[in-house]
Amino acid sequence: MSEEKKIPYKIYLNENEMPTRWYNVRSDMKNKPAPLINPGTKEPMGFDDLRPVFCDELIKQELDNDTAYFDIPQKILDFYKMYRPSPLVRAYCLEEALGTPAKIYYKFEGNNTSGSHKLNSAIAQAYYAKEQGLKGLTTETGAGQWGTALSMACAYLGLDLKVFMVKVSYEQKPFRREVMRTYGASVTPSPSMETQIGKKINAEHPGTTGSLGCAISEAVEVATTNEGYRYVLGSVLNQVLLHQSIIGLETKAALDKYGIVPDMIIGCAGGGSNLGGLIAPFMGEKLRGEKDYRIIAVEPASCPSFTRGVYAYDFCDTGMVCPLAKMYTLGSDFIPSANHAGGLRYHGMSPILSQLYADGYMEAVSVEQTSVFEAATKFARTEGILPAPESSHAIKVAMDEALKCKETGEEKTIVFGLTGTGYFDLVAYQKYNDGEMTDYIPTDEDLKKSIANLPPM
Amino acid sequence: MSEEKKIPYKIYLNENEMPTRWYNVRSDMKNKPAPLINPGTKEPMGFDDLRPVFCDELIKQELDNDTAYFDIPQKILDFYKMYRPSPLVRAYCLEEALGTPAKIYYKFEGNNTSGSHKLNSAIAQAYYAKEQGLKGLTTETGAGQWGTALSMACAYLGLDLKVFMVKVSYEQKPFRREVMRTYGASVTPSPSMETQIGKKINAEHPGTTGSLGCAISEAVEVATTNEGYRYVLGSVLNQVLLHQSIIGLETKAALDKYGIVPDMIIGCAGGGSNLGGLIAPFMGEKLRGEKDYRIIAVEPASCPSFTRGVYAYDFCDTGMVCPLAKMYTLGSDFIPSANHAGGLRYHGMSPILSQLYADGYMEAVSVEQTSVFEAATKFARTEGILPAPESSHAIKVAMDEALKCKETGEEKTIVFGLTGTGYFDLVAYQKYNDGEMTDYIPTDEDLKKSIANLPPM
Repeated sequence: MSEEKKIPYKIYLNENEMPTRWYNVRSDMKNKPAPLINPGTKEPMGFDDLRPVFCDELIKQELDNDTAYFDIPQKILDFYKMYRPSPLVRAYCLEEALGTPAKIYYKFEGNNTSGSHKLNSAIAQAYYAKEQGLKGLTTETGAGQWGTALSMACAYLGLDLKVFMVKVSYEQKPFRREVMRTYGASVTPSPSMETQIGKKINAEHPGTTGSLGCAISEAVEVATTNEGYRYVLGSVLNQVLLHQSIIGLETKAALDKYGIVPDMIIGCAGGGSNLGGLIAPFMGEKLRGEKDYRIIAVEPASCPSFTRGVYAYDFCDTGMVCPLAKMYTLGSDFIPSANHAGGLRYHGMSPILSQLYADGYMEAVSVEQTSVFEAATKFARTEGILPAPESSHAIKVAMDEALKCKETGEEKTIVFGLTGTGYFDLVAYQKYNDGEMTDYIPTDEDLKKSIANLPPM
Repeated sequence: MSEEKKIPYKIYLNENEMPTRWYNVRSDMKNKPAPLINPGTKEPMGFDDLRPVFCDELIKQELDNDTAYFDIPQKILDFYKMYRPSPLVRAYCLEEALGTPAKIYYKFEGNNTSGSHKLNSAIAQAYYAKEQGLKGLTTETGAGQWGTALSMACAYLGLDLKVFMVKVSYEQKPFRREVMRTYGASVTPSPSMETQIGKKINAEHPGTTGSLGCAISEAVEVATTNEGYRYVLGSVLNQVLLHQSIIGLETKAALDKYGIVPDMIIGCAGGGSNLGGLIAPFMGEKLRGEKDYRIIAVEPASCPSFTRGVYAYDFCDTGMVCPLAKMYTLGSDFIPSANHAGGLRYHGMSPILSQLYADGYMEAVSVEQTSVFEAATKFARTEGILPAPESSHAIKVAMDEALKCKETGEEKTIVFGLTGTGYFDLVAYQKYNDGEMTDYIPTDEDLKKSIANLPPM
């Protein structure tokens, strides 16, 4: 116990202990993730196929299944120093509140203005665009986390940024929009009248409030039809998981510093960017047979791609303009029930994580949102931090596992990813506080219908 | 330069380097701050006079002008560990953007869910209430920073909390309200029908949207008429500055660690809680004649209590239910112009800071809000953090001073207080982003009128 107490509430790495390389978990996978394929030709997408859309250096990272480590450029390391290392927190107060012998740690990625881990990849993608001499970037955003992160990165590097924001979010979530504008991004409600696809959709569906798929299509159109612009995406892609490995590398370095070996690592999973980053170095050890860890992906019961989806090639976007990816998917036109307030609403999953799950290296569990907000509230009151609904999926399962330890008396060490803060999710919290939050689980019939729409291969 | 670069972007103290005592700057003041006085009898308020409203231990702290250090109780130290030490950040990126030889540091207090430094005193006040065996606390909140901080502290200690929130904020700022509710506080729009004073005001002014003065009156009424409740306040009071000295003590320890001696210390000033805390140990050295520093208070031109107020006894609240305090004041019914979006709207100033200013130990400067938001935006884009409008007053003056160094070539060391984040101030940012922000400076006539309402002494 005195040994125990030497572990501080928050473990910060010193600047000279911070990782200087990203780790590419694909290098240790025997079964590599399936390549992106061209929806027309059904051929794997090569470097030249991807050049009109993505930056050169990022395509190299996307396609490289072999290089184990990529040096992080100095300019990115400098940017990381402004908000990293993020703390690895020992949840002493939560442990006490639960009365568990388990030791709980969480890696908190919310201590930056974008409020989430998304910034780790945003700065990397913006950097390579700048290095390539591009003028600017385009992207889409739903709730706005990714758009905020990217606007911060572009402001830092002096890049232009055009964000297409789903119209309903643009109107109902003006605060995220204003953060992006404060960072100098232009934010356009989608569908707009600035693109061909936007005009077409507005003509066909007058008064539509937009969708993520439509916003992606607009962002891609602007990137491919304007000299000096490229499109960037905040999740799912291999390059994104590579950049996000900084989360796991820091976590591992902090644990190693105190000789802590986790029994299980828990993360929420939407498109997989956080989970893939958090688990990367641990998964590497597991793949190389050096260590064993339980690795648990947590997803919402209302959008259960791992636990109830199929592993197949599918469109990455509802607009069907992007390449096909092989992944656990619910079908590209799957949309979670309107009552779903907890984020993680993507129909698919990172191809890397999909392959690892298919090969049995990870578990997955789904949880219902009222129980997630209950866990979030308990966490907020004991640990102080108001968590994002997405992150709270991991909190819920970490608490469940800690309570199992209470029953068995086992002193397991649990690490989970706290991806962000809930400051911009208070409409959802209000619903919960007012007792008006409900759960919804799609029926087998629902899923059969959306999964039936997979592209023929 | 290589020497230079050894200073990390963020200086964090280790847990064993964190202060364990609060510092009471009054102990080193030759001229002590004037006592609170009873508005009826005009006699100084003693321990017994204050007992119906405040906790015993806090009254002792309030009245103690001699004890230099107060041990911080272990439970509060544990709570501090959840979000402290706050980082002292070297603003390398801002320095580069300004092209200044000055060295700029800021103490960032926004990395906690309440988003500001208010939590430092909230936990202390809640702790002593709990120790005294009380059931709960009451308070008022305007924009909601203080209410949020106190709700976090009360959740941690299992105290009941009733917050009276100015009705217009309750309706227009639902997000802060929901954070408080998530932490278990009951939040009542003020004026309410739950108090005598609230009923009276509602009857006299049907449809009123409330005021801070009214909310204070309601909170005090509930505290004094319910067994086991006390009222707490987040600024102005001596006890609050005592608790907030943790900011300055950490700042000084971090600077000392690297042998850095600041030339000037800059903080925004509303009621004075942040500024008083930040400067405390530096002011102590200055008062004892050991060191000299320029200490600069920054206030909004639209609410200029230091720079254009009078030093006199006045009511602390617009409702005139609280004791009288001797302070720089614009008169207790002074309200900043409706166009004022930048916070720091209190008509008076901490009695401690008022005495120090009267005695010539501090400077004060006022700035207009469009220039404040311009500085805030520049800061956000270079340093990443979206600052609170309040904090941005200090940013503005720190940048001005750094630019003076650029002209003179002096390598001065500037430390300023970054009290919080602007996540809940995006309506103001939107106004600025839309080019709709204006400035307003009260006329001499305006101030003459409000200052004429001082209580006769």
